[in-house]
Amino acid sequence: MAAAPPVAIIMGSQSDWATMRHAAETLEALDIPFDARIVSAHRTPDRLVAFAKGAKAAGLKVVIAGAGGAAHLPGMAAAMTSLPVFGVPVESKALSGQDSLLSIVQMPAGIPVGTLAIGRAGAVNAALLAAAVLALSDDAVAARLDAWRAAQSAAVAERPETEI
Amino acid sequence: MAAAPPVAIIMGSQSDWATMRHAAETLEALDIPFDARIVSAHRTPDRLVAFAKGAKAAGLKVVIAGAGGAAHLPGMAAAMTSLPVFGVPVESKALSGQDSLLSIVQMPAGIPVGTLAIGRAGAVNAALLAAAVLALSDDAVAARLDAWRAAQSAAVAERPETEI
Amino acid sequence: MAAAPPVAIIMGSQSDWATMRHAAETLEALDIPFDARIVSAHRTPDRLVAFAKGAKAAGLKVVIAGAGGAAHLPGMAAAMTSLPVFGVPVESKALSGQDSLLSIVQMPAGIPVGTLAIGRAGAVNAALLAAAVLALSDDAVAARLDAWRAAQSAAVAERPETEI
Amino acid sequence: MAAAPPVAIIMGSQSDWATMRHAAETLEALDIPFDARIVSAHRTPDRLVAFAKGAKAAGLKVVIAGAGGAAHLPGMAAAMTSLPVFGVPVESKALSGQDSLLSIVQMPAGIPVGTLAIGRAGAVNAALLAAAVLALSDDAVAARLDAWRAAQSAAVAERPETEI
Amino acid sequence: MAAAPPVAIIMGSQSDWATMRHAAETLEALDIPFDARIVSAHRTPDRLVAFAKGAKAAGLKVVIAGAGGAAHLPGMAAAMTSLPVFGVPVESKALSGQDSLLSIVQMPAGIPVGTLAIGRAGAVNAALLAAAVLALSDDAVAARLDAWRAAQSAAVAERPETEI
Amino acid sequence: MAAAPPVAIIMGSQSDWATMRHAAETLEALDIPFDARIVSAHRTPDRLVAFAKGAKAAGLKVVIAGAGGAAHLPGMAAAMTSLPVFGVPVESKALSGQDSLLSIVQMPAGIPVGTLAIGRAGAVNAALLAAAVLALSDDAVAARLDAWRAAQSAAVAERPETEI
Amino acid sequence: MAAAPPVAIIMGSQSDWATMRHAAETLEALDIPFDARIVSAHRTPDRLVAFAKGAKAAGLKVVIAGAGGAAHLPGMAAAMTSLPVFGVPVESKALSGQDSLLSIVQMPAGIPVGTLAIGRAGAVNAALLAAAVLALSDDAVAARLDAWRAAQSAAVAERPETEI
Amino acid sequence: MAAAPPVAIIMGSQSDWATMRHAAETLEALDIPFDARIVSAHRTPDRLVAFAKGAKAAGLKVVIAGAGGAAHLPGMAAAMTSLPVFGVPVESKALSGQDSLLSIVQMPAGIPVGTLAIGRAGAVNAALLAAAVLALSDDAVAARLDAWRAAQSAAVAERPETEI
Repeated sequence: MAAAPPVAIIMGSQSDWATMRHAAETLEALDIPFDARIVSAHRTPDRLVAFAKGAKAAGLKVVIAGAGGAAHLPGMAAAMTSLPVFGVPVESKALSGQDSLLSIVQMPAGIPVGTLAIGRAGAVNAALLAAAVLALSDDAVAARLDAWRAAQSAAVAERPETEI
Repeated sequence: MAAAPPVAIIMGSQSDWATMRHAAETLEALDIPFDARIVSAHRTPDRLVAFAKGAKAAGLKVVIAGAGGAAHLPGMAAAMTSLPVFGVPVESKALSGQDSLLSIVQMPAGIPVGTLAIGRAGAVNAALLAAAVLALSDDAVAARLDAWRAAQSAAVAERPETEI
Repeated sequence: MAAAPPVAIIMGSQSDWATMRHAAETLEALDIPFDARIVSAHRTPDRLVAFAKGAKAAGLKVVIAGAGGAAHLPGMAAAMTSLPVFGVPVESKALSGQDSLLSIVQMPAGIPVGTLAIGRAGAVNAALLAAAVLALSDDAVAARLDAWRAAQSAAVAERPETEI
Repeated sequence: MAAAPPVAIIMGSQSDWATMRHAAETLEALDIPFDARIVSAHRTPDRLVAFAKGAKAAGLKVVIAGAGGAAHLPGMAAAMTSLPVFGVPVESKALSGQDSLLSIVQMPAGIPVGTLAIGRAGAVNAALLAAAVLALSDDAVAARLDAWRAAQSAAVAERPETEI
Repeated sequence: MAAAPPVAIIMGSQSDWATMRHAAETLEALDIPFDARIVSAHRTPDRLVAFAKGAKAAGLKVVIAGAGGAAHLPGMAAAMTSLPVFGVPVESKALSGQDSLLSIVQMPAGIPVGTLAIGRAGAVNAALLAAAVLALSDDAVAARLDAWRAAQSAAVAERPETEI
Repeated sequence: MAAAPPVAIIMGSQSDWATMRHAAETLEALDIPFDARIVSAHRTPDRLVAFAKGAKAAGLKVVIAGAGGAAHLPGMAAAMTSLPVFGVPVESKALSGQDSLLSIVQMPAGIPVGTLAIGRAGAVNAALLAAAVLALSDDAVAARLDAWRAAQSAAVAERPETEI
Repeated sequence: MAAAPPVAIIMGSQSDWATMRHAAETLEALDIPFDARIVSAHRTPDRLVAFAKGAKAAGLKVVIAGAGGAAHLPGMAAAMTSLPVFGVPVESKALSGQDSLLSIVQMPAGIPVGTLAIGRAGAVNAALLAAAVLALSDDAVAARLDAWRAAQSAAVAERPETEI
Repeated sequence: MAAAPPVAIIMGSQSDWATMRHAAETLEALDIPFDARIVSAHRTPDRLVAFAKGAKAAGLKVVIAGAGGAAHLPGMAAAMTSLPVFGVPVESKALSGQDSLLSIVQMPAGIPVGTLAIGRAGAVNAALLAAAVLALSDDAVAARLDAWRAAQSAAVAERPETEI
């Protein structure tokens, strides 16, 4: 039987996928299995409880949670699991994700959410941070992460292309 | 047997009482019974689920929820009850309640939280709004609320006291 | 003679209808009669006074008020009726509704406005909150509201559609 | 019979006097009669209507209005008089007057409020701006205003006192 | 010889005309003569000094000044004339006029600028406020302003057009 | 020879210790060894390079970095190590940590920093998040973390102490 | 052998060129040689160290650094060279450059970055400020800068083109 | 005859000295002569014009300008001299210097102000940046600046003092 994936990507709604797919694509690039699902803290609170309380037993190691506006998903997941939870503030329409960011990062002492940048960059980085955590006990992941980072550095041109 | 109180005041921590007591005092001034308790969305999620899912059956009519920072309590309560939920953003230390306000008011379509002002004014007004709701089907509350408002208006002096 | 509708949706200008129609549509989905009208606090203050002072006698139970910028309509309506008033901050051009939100939510102690999110989500939620208030004394509304919420929860997919 | 004063200073509550007294003192320094009164848009809306609609007939030329938080007084006064209205955002507790400022300045096209700075500076300047308006048709006021400004300029030291 | 116009509209650059033309059009609608010119505080400081110091002698009564970003034009004009100066924050690209607003409204005690809303609404209202000032000593302007306001109020529909 | 501690707490200056000591105390409560040192990105860039590049070889597993204002320490550490880096925005004087927060959390895609709340809560939570990461491969840490969380939940009183 | 250029324009990524090219074009207009290159603080920290530590020896006089989001490039360059460093906040997607601005300007005492406006205007002005610095010891540059400024002033029209 | 000092520190009012003295003290530590004076853009515009237009002829090389609120001094000085101008946003009462910062940094293309951090850090850094500019053509200043920076780095302790 195949092992459970170590990473779950959860998001509050279908529309968050446009952002969170960048986490998924980054994990794929690092060959790290993951599970992506919609868990709405507000519209499906039972699903959230079941997911978060069962996350550790399901074999998960890291939870990546993306949400926008009054974004309660990352913090509520973190309230019900002791696994590391990384939060991605999805850019909201009126306030450009400032509400999402504050709703995720300003957690009270006791329940941590490691928060990444608003939007696509945050989704990519949540995956990279998950990889960094997994790499601590998985040399193959560590090697792939280091290679990914080295390739990223090597891809930075010396000079701007001034004809664009 | 005494009837259950129609209003619950819930708050995320003991420190929120300094704000939420103004909701309690306003309800007392209006002779509306209430129940005040600490329900932390983050530290006691099970208590929150039990409270919110049982709120209607317990005879509650209105829930007043106060919280600060990444304030998830009002929205999560609203996710699990169809009773009206009124949220009070407690003034936070670093961001003066701007985080609390956005975390409470920017709820997605589907799960409403009627949000009041940051801090003491919001707590007083949550109680008055609860009274306005109860007054729709309770003439005695309506009369007391109208009297309270009339007294408030009458108490406004014509001239500022210029020696203060 | 038909009973007066229990809910009024008022807004500061025709342009607010693009937002406030979402409140209207949600009330229609819940089969709750309502009255929608333009009441400008600034350009038609007499109409505002007449509306707000006469709201209770007209049989209204809840007032939903939407406005943008220096949004005074919800608070001024609340100053002249003891009915519950729910405010919807309409997204403004330059400041994306931050001015609307603060102008509505930061009411002083004594005159409450239950404030919803900026824009469409807030308009939907104002209707849902009105329904929750009416449901306290109308079992049919309560049943329809519960059904609406259950359908909403059921409509949340388990997995994001990754090909979009 | 003494003529009515040309300037009214209105404010939402007694606590605003700590700010608005600086408008009063500046008018006194310029020997411009004024009337200071408490007019709460929210708690005494009838008084506001009576004041604003009667302002012109009462002989007023300029209205200075100070308020804090969801500050509706200046804009509502401007809605009911065509006299020039100058607004002073009183510094609020949680948001330091940012809510007051936006609630006053972001008026829709059609109803102007000339807005001054948050707090004491704004109160002083509302008085100076009222004087500038009155000076257009009163050479004595113009002379006193010019003298006040010249004295102000003359009082600026050349060098900072470095031992303080 | 024709009298000098009583109102000047000055702006920091050609691009501000897109906003300030609304002030011009409103003055035209009120049949108030005005002069529109570009005066850049930063690029043409000498022109600013000449304009502001000469404004009163040129027969001007009111100065309307629009600028964006680090908007120094209104405040610097106010520093060099005792005429009433009304400032219009032009919407800036990155910060949507928040910088323009603060740069104009937060003047220190001593030099007032009556500030209007960001963008088009502010430009319209600056013209209306200028008209209100002129109306104090010009009954014909007063009559036209009152008619304009009455027409504005009359133009507010009772019901939103729900098919749009 | 004793093993190297798995966690480093680095901070930009001595004054950050008032915040970061809460991370240290939390790690102590969880019996997790750590090393605390001052590494200023701006004043000691060489020390930063040496620390970050050597972090993995030194046996570190997690880096906690606190800084305020234009807070570059967490992001620059993350640029030079593939270990997980958690950032704590220290509350700054003028901007209350809003600058610290944005400087830490808004990292570009490629270099992640898991960011916690501004101030003390963020420092506590950085330690808890580090513990959650270590717990993935250390059952003793996992047990202590779960006990800590259980004790935290148990310590939440049912009722607010209303006499305080 | 040609002398090294006195100005370097560095930027965090290719996408910053759309902003930083305005610095380049302004330097070209002033006939000041410069070198433009991509130096990512996060993705190429070694390149940053090499560049900044070698800047003075390479004959550079002024460094212009543009970056967006958690913009660490200007401050880190300033940490490793005592040459004047001028920072340009590139407009970021979600927060419109507010994060870039605070990350660059809020440097702690000891390491200065002279910061310009967000976006294109800031890039132009960084070049002009560099020219002003070079002009202190280069009369030819001084003459060209004065001519540039004079032409700029002369190009300001007296009247807005009202047909546009 | 003694040479004129190369640096002027100007500020809008006596109260700004509490901030700007840190620029003075830093220049003193670097043995760089300077002249400190009060030049109010708003209250003494003539003094500003005289100062700025005469700055170059007076032998000045760098202007440091501090101001708060609607801070026009740095930008207006830069409009009238082609010397490098460095601006220090003084922390304002209500808005903590956010208004000062935006009023100084958001200059339009054409007139640069190199802006430093809000408050004391900005004042220190304005002096250091002035020194960096002077050092380009004064080896003695360069040597003192390098020594100052080396001493600063050397003063950073390795470990936080944990008993404080």
